[in-house]
Amino acid sequence: MNMSLSPAALRQAIRTGAHIGNTSGLAPGFVQCNIVILPQQWAADFLRFCQLNPRPCPLIATNQRPGDHALPLLGDVDIRTDVPSYRVFRDGLLVDEVTDIRTLWRDDLVTFALGCSFSFEEALLADGLEVRNVTEGVNVPMYRSAIDCTPAGPFAASMVVSMRPFRAADAIRAIQICTRFPAVHGAPVHLGDPGAIGISDLGRPDYGDPVSVRADELPLFWACGVTPQVALEAARPPLAITHSPGCMLVTDLRNSRLAVL
Amino acid sequence: MNMSLSPAALRQAIRTGAHIGNTSGLAPGFVQCNIVILPQQWAADFLRFCQLNPRPCPLIATNQRPGDHALPLLGDVDIRTDVPSYRVFRDGLLVDEVTDIRTLWRDDLVTFALGCSFSFEEALLADGLEVRNVTEGVNVPMYRSAIDCTPAGPFAASMVVSMRPFRAADAIRAIQICTRFPAVHGAPVHLGDPGAIGISDLGRPDYGDPVSVRADELPLFWACGVTPQVALEAARPPLAITHSPGCMLVTDLRNSRLAVL
Repeated sequence: MNMSLSPAALRQAIRTGAHIGNTSGLAPGFVQCNIVILPQQWAADFLRFCQLNPRPCPLIATNQRPGDHALPLLGDVDIRTDVPSYRVFRDGLLVDEVTDIRTLWRDDLVTFALGCSFSFEEALLADGLEVRNVTEGVNVPMYRSAIDCTPAGPFAASMVVSMRPFRAADAIRAIQICTRFPAVHGAPVHLGDPGAIGISDLGRPDYGDPVSVRADELPLFWACGVTPQVALEAARPPLAITHSPGCMLVTDLRNSRLAVL
Repeated sequence: MNMSLSPAALRQAIRTGAHIGNTSGLAPGFVQCNIVILPQQWAADFLRFCQLNPRPCPLIATNQRPGDHALPLLGDVDIRTDVPSYRVFRDGLLVDEVTDIRTLWRDDLVTFALGCSFSFEEALLADGLEVRNVTEGVNVPMYRSAIDCTPAGPFAASMVVSMRPFRAADAIRAIQICTRFPAVHGAPVHLGDPGAIGISDLGRPDYGDPVSVRADELPLFWACGVTPQVALEAARPPLAITHSPGCMLVTDLRNSRLAVL
């Protein structure tokens, strides 16, 4: 894959099947989004869940009305075809993984585009910090923590957190950098002792892959965009569609434009 | 002491001897400064030391020319009388502690006013965080760390750091708040393992008093304004005058005006 493709060209490649799979590292400089699609009847509660839990669920855009498959705020997007891989959930259970949801599309579907850690990882790397999962070429380790999200209607979840280790001075710098980006999870929610947030073994993540943590490093934990998938599993809507992990919606928004300062 | 005195009224009380001693908690909302006074011959190197080490030595103001005892940027100040207690060093050795330096004043003396942690402690307290040394009514514990300052001429020092413990989420918040205030030491320089910066026992600070650190807390370490006093001891200028610990110059500058954002 040509990493320097524009977001629009990359979406075109995804739409036509020329690009399949992970979008990590592609279209550098541009925002990639977590996607959740729900029937309108479930959308108001999920929207409220996002508003109550902005760190795991930082809402960047929705479609303008139910059934719209465009997301004009994010570029010339057709949400039915422009994500490399979709997961289909029925009654909270994963039933299918597909590359196109045109046959599933309905006039009552509401799309939620949420910020993703790729944006802040790019900011950390640009500052010269090492991001361990990038260095080791694996998915970031993610854990179901004991931190409760605020529920909204049927949506409830323990917060899923992603972990990246840093030495102390770099940890402080990482907190400063990520604070600028609340729209993509913002500052870490915890650092240090994993047990304090209910994580018993860093070497056994619930999602993603383990990474090495050195003796002089502290683990930093960020609210993670997998949290809404846990809330979907709890809420058991008749239909829900999400992106597949790592296979994000690539947008025309620049990461730098998400910085609050 | 009336805590709500204006900075100008408080300086007047100090000048006339009506107020003696610690200025902690007085004139809330206003910047208090560490003071270093040196002969002109030593001033250029010390200024460079401050510029090279802005975290322990955040320079806020100097007098406009050698011998001036005014500091108009900081208010209607006479630096010879407006600090509650001064320390006099000769050849790097503490030889006297006085409440007035009019008889010591010379036409070649340069005054340096440096930011002080009182400003960021106020910002932490205003955000609802607990500052342990304030809660426990003691001086903040300070330690000579293994972090080397960048030397300038005869001025060299290991960085002195102050320590305040926080639970992880509050530690992250404290880093965010202090990042806004680079003129008063800014963000911590270290957190977590004291041994990583050469501190062997938190219970035995080199300056100030020990504070309790709970099992679920991390120690956060800030660059400290005592560092320049260590550099003075190393440089051994024939004359140097500083404030006594905790007895600061109270200025008309508002703490909020030091915030960079």
